[in-house]
Amino acid sequence: MLPFEDLDFAKIDHHRSIRKGFPEVVYAKGKTNDQVVSISKAILSQSTNLLITRSNKETFLEIKKHFNDAKFDEVSKIISVEKNPIKEKTPGIIVVAAGTSDIPVAQEAILTAESMGCKAESLFDVGVAGLQRLLSNIESIKRAKVVIVVAGMDGALPSVISGLIDIPIIAVPTSVGYGASFDGLAPLLTMLNSCSPGVSVVNIDNGFGAGYMASSILLNYKKYLN
Amino acid sequence: MLPFEDLDFAKIDHHRSIRKGFPEVVYAKGKTNDQVVSISKAILSQSTNLLITRSNKETFLEIKKHFNDAKFDEVSKIISVEKNPIKEKTPGIIVVAAGTSDIPVAQEAILTAESMGCKAESLFDVGVAGLQRLLSNIESIKRAKVVIVVAGMDGALPSVISGLIDIPIIAVPTSVGYGASFDGLAPLLTMLNSCSPGVSVVNIDNGFGAGYMASSILLNYKKYLN
Amino acid sequence: MLPFEDLDFAKIDHHRSIRKGFPEVVYAKGKTNDQVVSISKAILSQSTNLLITRSNKETFLEIKKHFNDAKFDEVSKIISVEKNPIKEKTPGIIVVAAGTSDIPVAQEAILTAESMGCKAESLFDVGVAGLQRLLSNIESIKRAKVVIVVAGMDGALPSVISGLIDIPIIAVPTSVGYGASFDGLAPLLTMLNSCSPGVSVVNIDNGFGAGYMASSILLNYKKYLN
Amino acid sequence: MLPFEDLDFAKIDHHRSIRKGFPEVVYAKGKTNDQVVSISKAILSQSTNLLITRSNKETFLEIKKHFNDAKFDEVSKIISVEKNPIKEKTPGIIVVAAGTSDIPVAQEAILTAESMGCKAESLFDVGVAGLQRLLSNIESIKRAKVVIVVAGMDGALPSVISGLIDIPIIAVPTSVGYGASFDGLAPLLTMLNSCSPGVSVVNIDNGFGAGYMASSILLNYKKYLN
Amino acid sequence: MLPFEDLDFAKIDHHRSIRKGFPEVVYAKGKTNDQVVSISKAILSQSTNLLITRSNKETFLEIKKHFNDAKFDEVSKIISVEKNPIKEKTPGIIVVAAGTSDIPVAQEAILTAESMGCKAESLFDVGVAGLQRLLSNIESIKRAKVVIVVAGMDGALPSVISGLIDIPIIAVPTSVGYGASFDGLAPLLTMLNSCSPGVSVVNIDNGFGAGYMASSILLNYKKYLN
Amino acid sequence: MLPFEDLDFAKIDHHRSIRKGFPEVVYAKGKTNDQVVSISKAILSQSTNLLITRSNKETFLEIKKHFNDAKFDEVSKIISVEKNPIKEKTPGIIVVAAGTSDIPVAQEAILTAESMGCKAESLFDVGVAGLQRLLSNIESIKRAKVVIVVAGMDGALPSVISGLIDIPIIAVPTSVGYGASFDGLAPLLTMLNSCSPGVSVVNIDNGFGAGYMASSILLNYKKYLN
Amino acid sequence: MLPFEDLDFAKIDHHRSIRKGFPEVVYAKGKTNDQVVSISKAILSQSTNLLITRSNKETFLEIKKHFNDAKFDEVSKIISVEKNPIKEKTPGIIVVAAGTSDIPVAQEAILTAESMGCKAESLFDVGVAGLQRLLSNIESIKRAKVVIVVAGMDGALPSVISGLIDIPIIAVPTSVGYGASFDGLAPLLTMLNSCSPGVSVVNIDNGFGAGYMASSILLNYKKYLN
Amino acid sequence: MLPFEDLDFAKIDHHRSIRKGFPEVVYAKGKTNDQVVSISKAILSQSTNLLITRSNKETFLEIKKHFNDAKFDEVSKIISVEKNPIKEKTPGIIVVAAGTSDIPVAQEAILTAESMGCKAESLFDVGVAGLQRLLSNIESIKRAKVVIVVAGMDGALPSVISGLIDIPIIAVPTSVGYGASFDGLAPLLTMLNSCSPGVSVVNIDNGFGAGYMASSILLNYKKYLN
Repeated sequence: MLPFEDLDFAKIDHHRSIRKGFPEVVYAKGKTNDQVVSISKAILSQSTNLLITRSNKETFLEIKKHFNDAKFDEVSKIISVEKNPIKEKTPGIIVVAAGTSDIPVAQEAILTAESMGCKAESLFDVGVAGLQRLLSNIESIKRAKVVIVVAGMDGALPSVISGLIDIPIIAVPTSVGYGASFDGLAPLLTMLNSCSPGVSVVNIDNGFGAGYMASSILLNYKKYLN
Repeated sequence: MLPFEDLDFAKIDHHRSIRKGFPEVVYAKGKTNDQVVSISKAILSQSTNLLITRSNKETFLEIKKHFNDAKFDEVSKIISVEKNPIKEKTPGIIVVAAGTSDIPVAQEAILTAESMGCKAESLFDVGVAGLQRLLSNIESIKRAKVVIVVAGMDGALPSVISGLIDIPIIAVPTSVGYGASFDGLAPLLTMLNSCSPGVSVVNIDNGFGAGYMASSILLNYKKYLN
Repeated sequence: MLPFEDLDFAKIDHHRSIRKGFPEVVYAKGKTNDQVVSISKAILSQSTNLLITRSNKETFLEIKKHFNDAKFDEVSKIISVEKNPIKEKTPGIIVVAAGTSDIPVAQEAILTAESMGCKAESLFDVGVAGLQRLLSNIESIKRAKVVIVVAGMDGALPSVISGLIDIPIIAVPTSVGYGASFDGLAPLLTMLNSCSPGVSVVNIDNGFGAGYMASSILLNYKKYLN
Repeated sequence: MLPFEDLDFAKIDHHRSIRKGFPEVVYAKGKTNDQVVSISKAILSQSTNLLITRSNKETFLEIKKHFNDAKFDEVSKIISVEKNPIKEKTPGIIVVAAGTSDIPVAQEAILTAESMGCKAESLFDVGVAGLQRLLSNIESIKRAKVVIVVAGMDGALPSVISGLIDIPIIAVPTSVGYGASFDGLAPLLTMLNSCSPGVSVVNIDNGFGAGYMASSILLNYKKYLN
Repeated sequence: MLPFEDLDFAKIDHHRSIRKGFPEVVYAKGKTNDQVVSISKAILSQSTNLLITRSNKETFLEIKKHFNDAKFDEVSKIISVEKNPIKEKTPGIIVVAAGTSDIPVAQEAILTAESMGCKAESLFDVGVAGLQRLLSNIESIKRAKVVIVVAGMDGALPSVISGLIDIPIIAVPTSVGYGASFDGLAPLLTMLNSCSPGVSVVNIDNGFGAGYMASSILLNYKKYLN
Repeated sequence: MLPFEDLDFAKIDHHRSIRKGFPEVVYAKGKTNDQVVSISKAILSQSTNLLITRSNKETFLEIKKHFNDAKFDEVSKIISVEKNPIKEKTPGIIVVAAGTSDIPVAQEAILTAESMGCKAESLFDVGVAGLQRLLSNIESIKRAKVVIVVAGMDGALPSVISGLIDIPIIAVPTSVGYGASFDGLAPLLTMLNSCSPGVSVVNIDNGFGAGYMASSILLNYKKYLN
Repeated sequence: MLPFEDLDFAKIDHHRSIRKGFPEVVYAKGKTNDQVVSISKAILSQSTNLLITRSNKETFLEIKKHFNDAKFDEVSKIISVEKNPIKEKTPGIIVVAAGTSDIPVAQEAILTAESMGCKAESLFDVGVAGLQRLLSNIESIKRAKVVIVVAGMDGALPSVISGLIDIPIIAVPTSVGYGASFDGLAPLLTMLNSCSPGVSVVNIDNGFGAGYMASSILLNYKKYLN
Repeated sequence: MLPFEDLDFAKIDHHRSIRKGFPEVVYAKGKTNDQVVSISKAILSQSTNLLITRSNKETFLEIKKHFNDAKFDEVSKIISVEKNPIKEKTPGIIVVAAGTSDIPVAQEAILTAESMGCKAESLFDVGVAGLQRLLSNIESIKRAKVVIVVAGMDGALPSVISGLIDIPIIAVPTSVGYGASFDGLAPLLTMLNSCSPGVSVVNIDNGFGAGYMASSILLNYKKYLN
C-alpha cells in the first residue's frame, strides 16, 4: 500500500510527489489555522517544498512561527516554503493577463509554476480593447512553450491569442467584472466556446490549476528532452 | 385616439409608421397562414411596405397569391413586399459576421435595414481566429456610420472591433455553436461584458432587431443633416 | 507600432484617444490605490481628461493629493478630472430612470456622457406603474437624439418608451429589486426581449457603457453634420 | 373516507367537485389514449362536465366515440364535454393577450373559465409596442372583475395594465419569443418582478391555471353576493 | 394630465390612490434617508396613509422626527403612518406560514393588508412535515375569502392547501432554506408548478405583493357587495 | 486483478456481481444495436440475469433473436432476460407515483427492483391535489420497508409522505410538467429541499436508480436478518 | 386529532416522535433566540432529546441558561440536549469526507445520527486525488450498513465508492470550492448523475438530512432484526 | 498582409497553416452543402489535408464527387481528405472514454489527432463504476505524453486518472446522460472543479478541440526534441 500519513482530519498523501512529481498543495480556505499548520508540518517532514493557496496574513503568521523561511505573497494570497530552493527553474511559461484586476489570479499561476520548478514570465494588461498592446508583444508570447491567458469580463483574449500562435493555451476565466459576468460565468463560457482551437480551460479564478497544468506540460517536455 | 384597425385576433397599429417611421413588422412564428395573410392585407392597405420575419416557403406561397410582388429570402426566411420601392437607400451600415454559419442572422439584419430605406454592406467570415481577415478589411468598416456585428461561439468579435473604431456597434449573438454555447447564451454574455465600450446588444439571433436599431441610428443622422 | 506606455502592471493605451476619440477609462474595482494613481498619472500625462468608475471616497482622497481639481460624485462613485473643461457640451442625450433607486446607475451614464463632451438631461422616476408621469414628459424625450433608459425590477420601461418614439434607445438593466430579479437578470432578459424594436442593451448596472454608447452615437451625428 | 374511484393507473377524485367546486381536469400529455378514455368515463359517471387539456385531434377522435357531444378546440387543444350545459355563465373575466401568437394560451384560459361556469371576454394584440391599442380599450378592461394578462417576449403588459386599474391581475407568461426568452423564462421573471402591485403569476403557457384562478376569484364574489 | 408631484429624484403619483385605490408605497432599499423622508412628506401631503417597506431602524428614526405617529415593525421592517386610522377593517384574509422562519415575510403581507383596510388573520408553522397541524386548522382557513401561503424550502404547502379548499390562494416563496434552495428559486418553481389549480405566485420574499394582491381581491368582493 | 472482459468498445465488468451483488446493467441510449447485443452476450455468458434500460422495440427484436426468453416492457422501455428466474422475491418496496403520467418512471423502478430479486408493490395517482387518496392508502405504505416516491410538476409528494412515516424514502423527480418545470428541475429542487427529513433523491426520471437504491437497502435488511 | 402545542409563532409537533420515531429538530437560522428557547422548552417538556442545527455560540449561551446539560459543537454548530443519554448506540454508519474542509458538514451528519441513537464512525480526507487513501480504508467502509459520503469540488467520491461496495450510499454535496462550483451546484449535479447505482443525494451542505436518512435506514434494520 | 482567399460567404485563411501549423478545419453544421464544397475546394487548392467535422452522409456524398479520396467516419461524422498521407504519425496520445456511449466524441478526438499527424491510442469503457478496468490499464495510460479523457454523466473519470499520473489531461464532458445532466452541464462542472490538478477542459462534446489541443502539446514536444 502506498504511503500516507493519517492525521485523522487529514490524510497526508506522501506518495503524491512520487506519483505526480509534486507534493500535496494545501487549499487553506475552509481549514482552521491549526489544521493548516499540522498538515504543513506533515508535508514538510517528507518534502522540501510547501505551497498553501487561498490563505491570508493571519494564517501566514501562524505558519511563520513554525517555518521561519515561509513567505507570503500579498497579491495571490499564497504561502510558500522552499527549504531547498530549486536553483535553475525551467523557462517556457508565459502568463498573460487581460487587465490589471486579473493580476492576483495571474500571480497565483506564476507562483505555482515557480514552486514546481518552472519559470514563468508575465505580460499584463494586454486585453483586446487595445490590440496593439498585444500585437507588439506577440513575439515574447511566441517564445513560450506554454501560454496561460487570464481574463475576466468578455474573456475574449484566449481566442484572439490562439488565432496567432501554435502553442497550447491554458485559459483562466476570472470573476472580474460585474452584472452579467455572473461571477465569472461569462468569460468561462466564452473560453469554452473559443472559435480558435488549441485552448483548454480551468476553473474560474483558478490560477493554481493553470500554473499546475502548464508546469505539467513543460516538465514533460523537459523529461522527453533528457 | 390614434388609428388602429381591429381584426379581433390582431390590432393593426397603422399609427406606428407615424410614431416610429416604419409600419408594423409581422413576426410569423406562432401565427397561422390565415392570420399572416389578414394582417398583411391590413398593413398594406395603409402602407407601401411589408416585412414578415421568421417565415417559411409555405407561408410565402400563400402571401404570393395576394401580393404578386412579394419576395422570399431563403437564407433569412424573410418575406417582403415593396409596392413602391425606395429608389435611393441611405448608405452607412455594415453587417459583419464572424462565421459562415452566422450569415442567416446577418442577412435578416441586412434585409430589415433595406426594407427601412437603408443600404447595408456585408463583410462575412472575419472571426477572430484569423485576425488578418478582419484587419485587412478594417478600413471598409471604418467607412460605416453604424456597425452590426454578428457572432456565435465565443462572441469575441464585437469586443475586438470595438477596440479599433469609434463607431457605435450593435452586437448580435447567434445560437451557432454547441455544448456550452447553451443556444447562444455564451456569446450573449460575452457581448454584454465587452471590455471595450461602444457596444450594445440585441437578443440572440435577432438580426431583425439589429437591423432596426442600426437603421434607426442612421436615419436619425440623416434627419439632422437635412 | 501604436503608442502605449508600459507600467508593467498596466499598459496605458495612449493611442486610444486617437482610435476611439476618448482616452482610457479606469475601472477602479479590483485595483489597488497605488495602481489607480499610477495609471491616472500616465493617462493625464497625455490627456486633459480622466474618468475613474466604480471608485470610492478613499481612492478619491489619494487621487486628490496628486490632482487637485479631481472631483468625486458620491452617487455614481465616479472620480473625474477635467484639466481643460469642454466649454460647449453637445446636447441630445436624455437619461430616463424608472425609479429613484436606479439613479446611481443613471448618474454614471450622465457623468460619462459629460466627460465625453456631451450634455445629458435627466428624467427620473417615470416607471410604468404610473404611466401619466411618463406620458406627460414624452415631449422632452422626443427632443433627444439618443435615449438611455435605466430600469430594474420588471425592466418594462424601454419597451414602453420604444413604442412611442423613433429615437434609438440604449437600455440599462439594474440590480435594483429582490427575489426573482436575480441581481438584474430579470430586467436584462426583459430588455433583450423587447417587443418593440429600436432597443439595444448593455450590461447590468453598466451606466458607463450606456453613457459611452449614447455619446458615441451623438458625436457621430455631430461629425456628419460638420 | 372521502370518495375516490380506483382505476389502478389513476384514482378518480370524485370528491374534488365537492371540495373544490369543480371535478378533476385531465392533463392529456403523457397519458395514453386508453388512459384518457378510462379516466373520462369515470369522471363523467359522476359529473356532467369534463375538461381535457393539452390534447390532440387523435385523442379527441377516441373520446368522440364514447361521448358524442365532446368538442375539440383546435387553437387551445382542449377537449370538453358539457352534458348539461350551464345556461347562464357568470360574466366578469377578461383575457388580454399581448400578441396574436399568445392566443392559444389565452384561449385555454377562456375555455377553462367557461367550463367552470364563467364568461370570459377577450382582448387580443394590445401589447405595449402600440400603447394606444391598450389605452383605447382600457374601459372594457375596467369593467371586468378579474383580469388575465397573457404575454410572451418582454412580458411587460401586466405591469403596464396594473398601473392603470385596481382589479386583480393574473399574469401568464408564454414561451412565445426566441433567443434570450429561454422558453418563457424572460416574461416569467418580468411578471414576478412587476413594479406595480396587484399582479400574481402562474406557470409558463399555463392558460388553464390562469382560467381556473380567475374563475375561483369570480365565483367567490358571486358566493358572497348570494 | 393626471396629477403627480415632481421632486426631481422622484415623481409622486398622487393619482395612484384614485386609479389604484391606494397611494404609492415607498420601497426603502436603495434610497437615501433624505429621499425617503421627502417622498413620505409628499405622499402624506395628499394622503392619510403611508407605507414604507424594506426599511430599517435608522430610517425609522428619521421618519419619526417628521411624523410622530409613525410606527416601525421590527419583524417585517415596515414603517407605517396612519394619520386617520381605518376604524373597521374588512376581514377575510388569512396568512398561512409554513415555518417560524417564514414569519417576517408573512408579517409584511399582514401589515400591507391592514394598511389597505383589510384584516388579516395569521396561522403560522403549519408546514407539511406535520400535516395534522394543518388539518386541524383547516376550518379557520376555509372561513377566509383569500388565502396567502408563505413557504420556503420545498414550498409544498400551497399545493397541499389548494387541494383542500376552493378559495383563491396567493403563494409567496421565501428565501428560507439553504443549498439547493438557491435563495428561494426552489419554492418559487414548486409553487409555479402546483399540481392543484387555484394558486398564483408572487416574487420571492414579496410579502408586500401578496398582501396587496389579496387586499385587491377582498376589497373588490366588498365593492360588489355594496 | 479482478475479472473483466474486453470487447474493445466495452469492458464487461464480470466482477460487478461479486462486488455489488448484481451484474452490469446496460444503458441502451447512445449505443448501437450491435453494441447492445455484444454486451448482452458477454454479460449472459457469466450471469443468469440481464437488464437493459432506455431501450426500444427495434433493439428488443435484435436481442430477441439471440435470447428467446427476453421480455420487453412497453411502458418502461426495459428489456430483461431472466434465464433462471428468482422464485421468491423479497417483499418490502412500494413505488408511489403522484400522477398517471409518472407511471413509466415508476415502472422502471419496479422492474429494476424485480430484476434484483425484490418485489415492489405499486400505488399510483395519489398526488397531493387529492390528499384523501393518499391518506386512505397510508397503511399500505407503512407496511413497506423502503418507499420510492415518483412525482413531477411541484414534486411535493415526498415531503408530505415523509411527514407521515418513519421509513426511508427515495424520491424520483420526473420531467412531467411544462413551462417552469424546466424538464424536471422544479421537482428535483423541491425534493432536495424537503422540509421533512428522511428523503434522499436520485436523478430526474431515474426510475432505475431509485429501484436499485431501494433494492440495495432492502437486500441489506435481509442479509442482516439471515 | 394528533397532539401538537401551539406557541402561535410555532406549533410543536409532539406527535412527531410517535410518527417518525424522533422529535422535531430545530433549525435555528432565521429564528430569534427567544423563539429557539421557547421551542426548545416545549419540545423538552415532552421529550428527553433536543437537536438544534445551524446555530451559533450566542444562541447556545441562551439555551444553556435554561438547560444546563446543553452541549455546543463548534465544528457543526449543533446544540444538543440529551437529558437521558442513550446508553448503547446502534453501530453501522460511516461518514466519509473527501477533504478536510468538508468536515463541518460531515460532523453535522455524525451528531445527528448520534442524537438519533446511532453510532457513526468517520473517515476523513480520502478524496479521489489520492486513491490509495481510500482503497486502504475500503474494508472499514465495507463493515458499515449505511455509508454517508460528503464531498465538495468535483463531488466524484460517491461514484467511486459506489463502484466498490454493495451498501447504500447517501451522498452530500458541499459548497466547498470556488468559481464554477457555484456554491455546491457542481458536486450536486455530479452526485445526481453518478454512473454507478446505489447512490441517492440530499441537499447541499445538508449533513443533518444525510445523518437522518442513514439513521432511518439503520434503525429500520434493527427493527426488523428484533 | 497575410494571405486569405475571399469567397464572399467565407474567407479562407490560407495563412493559418503557417501560423498554427494546421489548415482551417470546416465545421459543417449550419453550412449548406454548396458552402462546404466551395470552402473545401479552396482549402485543398493550397493544402494537402482537409478535415470537416459535424457532417453527415449526404454532405459526404457531395464532397466525394469532387474529392475521390474523401473518407467519412460514421461514428464521429468526420469527413477527411489526406491527399498526401503522413507516413509516420507521432505517437503519444491516448484517448480514454468512460463509457461506450462516449465513443463518438472520443473518435472525433482520435481522427482530429491523426489528421494533424499524431497517433492516438484508445481505451474505452473504463469509467469509475468498475475501477479495476481502469487500474489494470493504468500502465498504458502512463506511457502516453498527453491524455484525453472523455466522460458524460458524473464526469468523474478525469479527477480519478489525474490522481494517478503526472501527465497533462484534456478532459471532454459529453452530453451522454439524462435528467440533471442538463445536456452535459453536469460533467462540465465536475471537470472544471477537479480536486486533483493537471486537468484542463474543453467544450461539451468537443472531441475536435481535445484532439487539437493534445496534438498541439505533442507536436510541441517533438519540435523541442528536434
